[in-house]
Amino acid sequence: MNKKSILPLALLSATALSAQTTDTRPNIILFMVDDMGWQDTSLPFWTQETPLNRKYHTPNMERLASQGMMFTQAYACPVSSPTRVSLMTGMNAARHRVTNWTLEKNKSTDRKSDVLDFPDWNVNGICQVPGIPHTYEVTSLSQLLKNSGYHTIHCGKAHWGAIDTPGESPRHFGFEVNIAGHAGGGLASYLGEQNFGNRTDGKPSPLQAIPGLKDYWGQDIFATEALTIEAMKALNKAKKLGQPFYLYMAHYAIHVPVDKDMRFYQKYRDAGLSEKEAGYASLIEGMDKSLGDLMNWLEKNDLEKNTIIIFMSDNGGLSSEDYWRDTPLHVQNAPLNSGKGSMYEGGTREPMIVRWPGTVKPKSKCNDYLIIEDFFPTILEMAQVKRYETIQSIDGKSFMPMLQGEKGFNKNRSLYWHFPNLWGNDGPGIGTTSAVRKGDWKLVYYYETGKKELFNIPDDIGEKKDLSAKHPELVKALSMELGGYLRGVSAQRPSFKATGKPCPWPDEI
Amino acid sequence: MNKKSILPLALLSATALSAQTTDTRPNIILFMVDDMGWQDTSLPFWTQETPLNRKYHTPNMERLASQGMMFTQAYACPVSSPTRVSLMTGMNAARHRVTNWTLEKNKSTDRKSDVLDFPDWNVNGICQVPGIPHTYEVTSLSQLLKNSGYHTIHCGKAHWGAIDTPGESPRHFGFEVNIAGHAGGGLASYLGEQNFGNRTDGKPSPLQAIPGLKDYWGQDIFATEALTIEAMKALNKAKKLGQPFYLYMAHYAIHVPVDKDMRFYQKYRDAGLSEKEAGYASLIEGMDKSLGDLMNWLEKNDLEKNTIIIFMSDNGGLSSEDYWRDTPLHVQNAPLNSGKGSMYEGGTREPMIVRWPGTVKPKSKCNDYLIIEDFFPTILEMAQVKRYETIQSIDGKSFMPMLQGEKGFNKNRSLYWHFPNLWGNDGPGIGTTSAVRKGDWKLVYYYETGKKELFNIPDDIGEKKDLSAKHPELVKALSMELGGYLRGVSAQRPSFKATGKPCPWPDEI
Repeated sequence: MNKKSILPLALLSATALSAQTTDTRPNIILFMVDDMGWQDTSLPFWTQETPLNRKYHTPNMERLASQGMMFTQAYACPVSSPTRVSLMTGMNAARHRVTNWTLEKNKSTDRKSDVLDFPDWNVNGICQVPGIPHTYEVTSLSQLLKNSGYHTIHCGKAHWGAIDTPGESPRHFGFEVNIAGHAGGGLASYLGEQNFGNRTDGKPSPLQAIPGLKDYWGQDIFATEALTIEAMKALNKAKKLGQPFYLYMAHYAIHVPVDKDMRFYQKYRDAGLSEKEAGYASLIEGMDKSLGDLMNWLEKNDLEKNTIIIFMSDNGGLSSEDYWRDTPLHVQNAPLNSGKGSMYEGGTREPMIVRWPGTVKPKSKCNDYLIIEDFFPTILEMAQVKRYETIQSIDGKSFMPMLQGEKGFNKNRSLYWHFPNLWGNDGPGIGTTSAVRKGDWKLVYYYETGKKELFNIPDDIGEKKDLSAKHPELVKALSMELGGYLRGVSAQRPSFKATGKPCPWPDEI
Repeated sequence: MNKKSILPLALLSATALSAQTTDTRPNIILFMVDDMGWQDTSLPFWTQETPLNRKYHTPNMERLASQGMMFTQAYACPVSSPTRVSLMTGMNAARHRVTNWTLEKNKSTDRKSDVLDFPDWNVNGICQVPGIPHTYEVTSLSQLLKNSGYHTIHCGKAHWGAIDTPGESPRHFGFEVNIAGHAGGGLASYLGEQNFGNRTDGKPSPLQAIPGLKDYWGQDIFATEALTIEAMKALNKAKKLGQPFYLYMAHYAIHVPVDKDMRFYQKYRDAGLSEKEAGYASLIEGMDKSLGDLMNWLEKNDLEKNTIIIFMSDNGGLSSEDYWRDTPLHVQNAPLNSGKGSMYEGGTREPMIVRWPGTVKPKSKCNDYLIIEDFFPTILEMAQVKRYETIQSIDGKSFMPMLQGEKGFNKNRSLYWHFPNLWGNDGPGIGTTSAVRKGDWKLVYYYETGKKELFNIPDDIGEKKDLSAKHPELVKALSMELGGYLRGVSAQRPSFKATGKPCPWPDEI
């Protein structure tokens, strides 16, 4: 006789709970900011405090850093989709071929060039099924987390696949909850009063109108706040389910338009900032408040100890448009040179923090470098997903040892960037480029001109002193390594309009 | 040189499309009606037309049957959750232990009994992760379809898991789109004017208020129509994605409340039906219109040839409540006896049709029996998912041969039902029961009294002539088989309050 089968129902909860194993793996919040530069914060990521650190106020980033580890050399790609795809797949952009930003089906966003034709990159992004043109079929990070038992929540910007392709929706990648994520990588408006860009007159809304926040239309609320409220609603549900959760909190902030977050705007005006710059600062502090709200939620719900928070941005701050930022341009990420779209540090170096009580030492700092595709194996390791199969080859390398305090990790490793497209704006380091970082050295190669630049990054973080003429043997060695890597992953390259011939790889010139 | 890499982008679509394989597997629509009885239609599923067939109008079911195959002996469980769980898992209810309907976490919906204690069945339903109390962890049909590349759409009622458990949302089972599905198995209101039962005064809405249809609140629209419009929106998106789709169109209709679908109500009043009965008939015809709308959508989009439609209901028509139906009771599924909740045919025999151009013969009829857990392997076979792994053992058997016209399939097979709970209402065949159907014979066993009934179904479809006294050897043989099966799948059973001892299995008395 099965004794359990005749227990009256009132006793069930206690007996069954004790008989079953509860999943105690850590919750994970990946707090991903859009277009946030390395200096868009009051938290100093350089060796010294900068004027930009004094300009912006991010108390919750400071709070997070005081509880965890800052990474001073965390890299992403120069634009959004390549970064986000690398994060979701563990692949380098040269391999996944989503090398520029995506939006419409079968449409390239490459700027036209008189000199170059651009390759048929994956303009439709990634996809979880085969047979979809111009996509790379992948096993995604979120799907693996879901498969392993995580409750998966997407909040904010997705930007992994073009409109009307399977990759357009986070739901197709195993996210059980999707708040406001779609094909778009920007936003038509931050303002609830403007319905976040959605039209109500029956005419089609702009492609970048934020979906999914209809409850806030017409209200005096900023998108950053609405997303935070919705994320906390999802967390309130998540804590009841009995599963660990993975929250991908991917803010639309601080992408243009530089709308004014009026909760913070006036403070910056009073401090003497111009209208544009005060607006930008208000976007940053609104994002920072969201981080604080989530940290408060964790504390209130006694979950802060078993929840990892990872703070990251997807590319450098926008520094090439005087419509949104004040002149002079290209100094908005100083001491870094240039910004979003550039192969210089201003385009790729990101503010990164990890808080993980019990594993990561509070108030610690890691000066070794890592790159965005490393997030994939690291997060799976955090989630204790030990065996998993992926369709794609993984380029990323877990940075768990760095979290555990190991110094000199990645010392002999090369990092690669590949952007065989032409982005929209002009600026230093913005072009059709590939790059490699090895130790202190960085080589940037320009396909259109064949030009190569060599920088010693610790000595010259602003990439002002091209040392290529001084160290030709180093240029040659790095060119060979970069060329070999790109051919190895079947990278694509542009060709010359005049001859129809492909541009040389960096070691062919 | 890779020739493809230098093609200008204008040429991309044609070349890439021809180079990749498109997924041409059939689309599948499972049109699942709630609480629809075998005779709630103008389509005669019996050997002869009945008064109920003349009472109701379902022209689109007739249209579907003229293009496909009717099944006259398609079985489900006597109530909703067990049926829907069997469909999603391929398991018999005795194995999955979701033997009564689910709603609130850790709360049984069993009616109280003075005589029996009921087992600790899976009151929280099914779940896709381990460690959740009172659930059965499963690999779901929808997850397997998604994994194989189907775009998966849920529309309407889910009813697989209790509130605040992972199984409450269709999204957790691999549905990429979820329209209005949640833990609830009924609905507070069909009326847009009543916000489908949702409150707007800040007080909590009833648990059975339909979620997800906020765009229709306050409008003069019936839930059945709103769900159909939303399903067609999802199909309009689906046809662009380049994947086959699986639409689980699970209407809340024709579950109580018997609201009046005013598009059809007056017609039935004019035909002389009472208010209650005209309301019920209007629910049916509204559901039938939805079927027609989906068929029209397929034709308009040239998808009717490569789309399978399966029509099914989850249990018998409600016949035990004079609040919603006119007296006399228990004749609402005539010639079948009783209705929802009953182990008699009125509780378990369903109207079923399959249309599959090129495979299923139009205007055909299958008189062999099958049961709801058979849908799982059949739909996976339709979807050409050949190798799959499931956590659970599969009891269902593909009925593909029946679709292909094989006669006598399942001839020597036994079907089993297990309902060791007590449902809410009283009526013939409603109790704490198990049953077995083998060939023409059916044995029903009542745990509380030890009573056994034996019916010859083809001779006595109304189950009025208990032949157990006449055929004791057959009763014994079927009891042994049923007892053996139930023990084999570790079925649960009630116990007697008076002694604390479990009720005997059917072959122990």
